[in-house]
Amino acid sequence: MALLADTVAKISGQDEEWRAKAKARLDQLALPHWSLGRLMDLALDLAGMTRSMEPAVDRRVVVTMAGDHGVVAEGVSRFPQDVTPQMVHNFVNGGAGINALARQAGAKVVVVDMGVAADLGELAASGRIIDRKVAPGTANIAAGPAMGREEAVAAIEAGIDVALGLVDEVDIFGTGDMGIGNTTPSTAIVACLCGCGVAEVTGRGTGLDDGQLAHKIKVIETALDLNRPDPADPVDVLAKVGGFEIGGLAGLVLGCAAARKPVLVDGFISTAGAMIARAIAPAAADFIIAAHRSVEPGHRRMHEYLGKDPLLDLNLRLGEGTGAAVAMNLVVAARAVLTDIATFEEAMVSGADK
Amino acid sequence: MALLADTVAKISGQDEEWRAKAKARLDQLALPHWSLGRLMDLALDLAGMTRSMEPAVDRRVVVTMAGDHGVVAEGVSRFPQDVTPQMVHNFVNGGAGINALARQAGAKVVVVDMGVAADLGELAASGRIIDRKVAPGTANIAAGPAMGREEAVAAIEAGIDVALGLVDEVDIFGTGDMGIGNTTPSTAIVACLCGCGVAEVTGRGTGLDDGQLAHKIKVIETALDLNRPDPADPVDVLAKVGGFEIGGLAGLVLGCAAARKPVLVDGFISTAGAMIARAIAPAAADFIIAAHRSVEPGHRRMHEYLGKDPLLDLNLRLGEGTGAAVAMNLVVAARAVLTDIATFEEAMVSGADK
Repeated sequence: MALLADTVAKISGQDEEWRAKAKARLDQLALPHWSLGRLMDLALDLAGMTRSMEPAVDRRVVVTMAGDHGVVAEGVSRFPQDVTPQMVHNFVNGGAGINALARQAGAKVVVVDMGVAADLGELAASGRIIDRKVAPGTANIAAGPAMGREEAVAAIEAGIDVALGLVDEVDIFGTGDMGIGNTTPSTAIVACLCGCGVAEVTGRGTGLDDGQLAHKIKVIETALDLNRPDPADPVDVLAKVGGFEIGGLAGLVLGCAAARKPVLVDGFISTAGAMIARAIAPAAADFIIAAHRSVEPGHRRMHEYLGKDPLLDLNLRLGEGTGAAVAMNLVVAARAVLTDIATFEEAMVSGADK
Repeated sequence: MALLADTVAKISGQDEEWRAKAKARLDQLALPHWSLGRLMDLALDLAGMTRSMEPAVDRRVVVTMAGDHGVVAEGVSRFPQDVTPQMVHNFVNGGAGINALARQAGAKVVVVDMGVAADLGELAASGRIIDRKVAPGTANIAAGPAMGREEAVAAIEAGIDVALGLVDEVDIFGTGDMGIGNTTPSTAIVACLCGCGVAEVTGRGTGLDDGQLAHKIKVIETALDLNRPDPADPVDVLAKVGGFEIGGLAGLVLGCAAARKPVLVDGFISTAGAMIARAIAPAAADFIIAAHRSVEPGHRRMHEYLGKDPLLDLNLRLGEGTGAAVAMNLVVAARAVLTDIATFEEAMVSGADK
């Protein structure tokens, strides 16, 4: 608990002084005022996060956290649970979507086993993944809590630890997830923290049909009714209806915020983790960049909760960190707007009428 | 006229056979079906355009075309006309928004003088810009046609020529524009070709206030009433209410389409050029990728006309090719989705239930 409390104590929001410095420069660029729109908003954020007029963006990492979910016993996913460890192998072999898109964005992929229900010891021993397995999969949330409160704290602290282990060699982080069934706990989290109806925020995940979707809604309603997570206590929400990789992602966001590093939050599962982080430490949201709006209907409610407007809307619903990787290009572009464009004076260009 | 007719004759749409080949591979990737959404749609387009399962994307160029507009005499812009040549110098010196964002995207910037009302001979002589000046600025469309029909054809053919001069060394093109006052002719073009009311599609350009906006609407209405461009004759529309850089951009799109090269169309002015291209050769639209939706209200109508859903929506309104440059990252990402992700079989991952 010491690590979590210490980390939360270190988090303060964006630095208004550095935002103002950045704004003063952007206001003078030789272009119609604020005509690079959201890239300029993002440039302010980068300056406010990093306390720099030349925010570092060269060293990029997507951290993809994997975990399994007991609730798959209820038939909430079209894929078998074996796919979680199979995909971890695929990540390590470089053949997954996140590998392709991280390469394009100039980012490394770091894979963390937060709670896969399979033995990944060989990959961990060879240093190809980071082993922070809390337990081999959560319990079935439709029959009881996902995990104990101590495990929830352990998952968050493991995520903090992963972040702190990387911060000295990484400028911008992306988050990613892998875990068959993990839209189900993520949906339970958004329904609980936003106080909205389950049906409103439940989506088709990897491709449920109408009957399967109705069943998934029932399973999530059962999980919430049975476990009664306390929306005022984010660790309780994670323990009752969350997942190990979701806790790890919450910790990753807290660790990034404590180290004042921008963190691009990917899709529905990553954003569930970011909600937990924000519920624990509201100022952590100042270091979050919402990468994209996914197809999952609840994702919009998550972004409202975080006060974020995502950068991309490309009908993505893969997870793994793929949307974060694509959006990294825009973060690098935003940095270029801050540092690489001449002012009216520098460029000897006439300004607008006053 | 021979070049225009010959180019149009060479344009055919995307190749359905190559789209089907690409779809067959994308359907097998080790991820939930089509879960990379629009990146997958774009990968199909790239295969259909280039007739390749490994569409080339490494050699990238943004072509930024500059021209001046007699209609600035009516007070439709907050910036003086001098800014057009000043910005051309800024492009050449590498200090503009397009330079910063093209560098980030790994693209070169090629600047073309299509009709700047200033002597840029020194830049042309030193090879730092391409001189295709049709005339030093258009005439005032609120008092008569922008240009003669021969000049309109010359502008389009110059754009084709620029494209054909580059196609052997460029894999993907972006379009860009510079020209004080050029949202005014672009708005006239969309109003004419879409048959919609001027007020509905007129925006604030570089930052007009309410009174200036009302005046701009009146100026455009006057230009359309006076010149009566024929919406069934795109060369007439360009001649009556267009601009030299808009004609050049139309030609650039036609040249790219004839050479089967993807062309990322930037903002409001570039898309006006793309509309002219599509009106001349409907199949040219198959090679257009709409980069972004700008703040200009008429841009949405332009995209409807082209049948395109833009990739980005970042409140950009600069032009220069900046949105095209940012979106190039997504085109490269889409290529990576097609070529760099393993199939279920290759990755030894279990599929979904049937």
